[in-house]
Amino acid sequence: MDDVAHVYTHTHRVRYRECDPMSVVYHTHYVDYFEMARTEAMRDLGLAYRTLEDDGIIMPVINVSVQYHAPAYYDDLLAIEAHFGQMPTVRVPIDYVVKRSDDDRRIASGHTDLCFMDADTRRPIRLPDRVHRAFASVLPT
Amino acid sequence: MDDVAHVYTHTHRVRYRECDPMSVVYHTHYVDYFEMARTEAMRDLGLAYRTLEDDGIIMPVINVSVQYHAPAYYDDLLAIEAHFGQMPTVRVPIDYVVKRSDDDRRIASGHTDLCFMDADTRRPIRLPDRVHRAFASVLPT
Amino acid sequence: MDDVAHVYTHTHRVRYRECDPMSVVYHTHYVDYFEMARTEAMRDLGLAYRTLEDDGIIMPVINVSVQYHAPAYYDDLLAIEAHFGQMPTVRVPIDYVVKRSDDDRRIASGHTDLCFMDADTRRPIRLPDRVHRAFASVLPT
Amino acid sequence: MDDVAHVYTHTHRVRYRECDPMSVVYHTHYVDYFEMARTEAMRDLGLAYRTLEDDGIIMPVINVSVQYHAPAYYDDLLAIEAHFGQMPTVRVPIDYVVKRSDDDRRIASGHTDLCFMDADTRRPIRLPDRVHRAFASVLPT
Repeated sequence: MDDVAHVYTHTHRVRYRECDPMSVVYHTHYVDYFEMARTEAMRDLGLAYRTLEDDGIIMPVINVSVQYHAPAYYDDLLAIEAHFGQMPTVRVPIDYVVKRSDDDRRIASGHTDLCFMDADTRRPIRLPDRVHRAFASVLPT
Repeated sequence: MDDVAHVYTHTHRVRYRECDPMSVVYHTHYVDYFEMARTEAMRDLGLAYRTLEDDGIIMPVINVSVQYHAPAYYDDLLAIEAHFGQMPTVRVPIDYVVKRSDDDRRIASGHTDLCFMDADTRRPIRLPDRVHRAFASVLPT
Repeated sequence: MDDVAHVYTHTHRVRYRECDPMSVVYHTHYVDYFEMARTEAMRDLGLAYRTLEDDGIIMPVINVSVQYHAPAYYDDLLAIEAHFGQMPTVRVPIDYVVKRSDDDRRIASGHTDLCFMDADTRRPIRLPDRVHRAFASVLPT
Repeated sequence: MDDVAHVYTHTHRVRYRECDPMSVVYHTHYVDYFEMARTEAMRDLGLAYRTLEDDGIIMPVINVSVQYHAPAYYDDLLAIEAHFGQMPTVRVPIDYVVKRSDDDRRIASGHTDLCFMDADTRRPIRLPDRVHRAFASVLPT
């Protein structure tokens, strides 16, 4: 997570259905939290995922990892940060940090790599032009 | 739920992620439990949903209701019964009863109405022939 | 849904994980949408659910029903309305209407009844005083 | 994943609600699949998680990673393997492989590390004796 060039923060209120009998957020939901932050970060760059799909482009997740640092509780407000570093080429690497808004406590961190695919052929493609331009507006090339 | 002509029972083990801070199954999961029982009941009649979709038929849910009678707990084995009554025509009405296998305690009950749609036009269609034959093999006509 | 005395509207952006292979919101998520709107409506009345739990009070759902009117799609902004009618006594009845914000299309509607329970004994209790006062501030008594 | 000493396989039928508009299993569900396999693997060793909780022991997930190799589709039968290697001491490392039963295609793989905690103090504890004995029955010490 060196060389972070662009950070987008999405705020999420923890739902009751996301908490388990230990009264903490069940661990699998953090992968959904990452998706929320990523989607809103892309929208903020003018890359609403629905418009990519309309252009015949999909962005599958290649891998994901999560490290759990501290529990989050029901009704906590979480700040989910998506960190973008170098300019993506074939893969889009994104780091994530989840903090509790109240006390700034680091709850979880993680990483995903995404790629671009043609929705019809389901084959990898290089970074589409409009995606390249959008990332180039915030990342060093 | 009078005149039940056919009952299919699906068994489900309650997962940790399905339980909330009160240590009981969160109420929204019962609608998913109904779907499990319905899907397996249809498969048992030779109507695997994937093959319906391959035939261009989808079965949207028109309405659902759930009554909650008693809590279910983590790791409970639940018997989810799908009850079929009269022969369906345009709608397929199904009643559900969820019991804990251990003590036969009634946990929840409910109902769904489904219809048939052409997957392309998304317009309602009448009961497809193969569906009619499958239901006719177990229900009074 | 006559005599609606108080309406609270919660806005939700449809997530990719909530959409199914028909590209529409999977039907079970509407029960979660109802919960979101109800929770935020109660918070707006000064009744944040976490503070109720801190007071040893839980509010289980007794029953839920949903009618599906039209499909919602990925990335749609939904307005989820919680409608409160008469002053609750033992049960809190709430009606819901889900509309797409763009075109005001009615997507789904539904109802829940909730009750109040002592968190320790898990037995029903009457409307707690602070809950009564909060509802009385917006509902006819 | 060298030195795999014990493998447990859990079978799961892909549910409609788990599939997204691309008609494939949404990526976050694999973390839930891992949990299913892990829970059943532990039960098979005489370590049903509910009985651990009854003993005041919880097993939080410290980290998780998933690599996605190929899409899984609605109604696929998946074989989710939990691989146990060396004898755990403080952490329990588990590798996972998800295959489609039909064609043995490798769909996803991953890893989790879990630890043991006192449910009351929420502090890490060493491997409980009965857990040690259960693992020692299948793993080289």
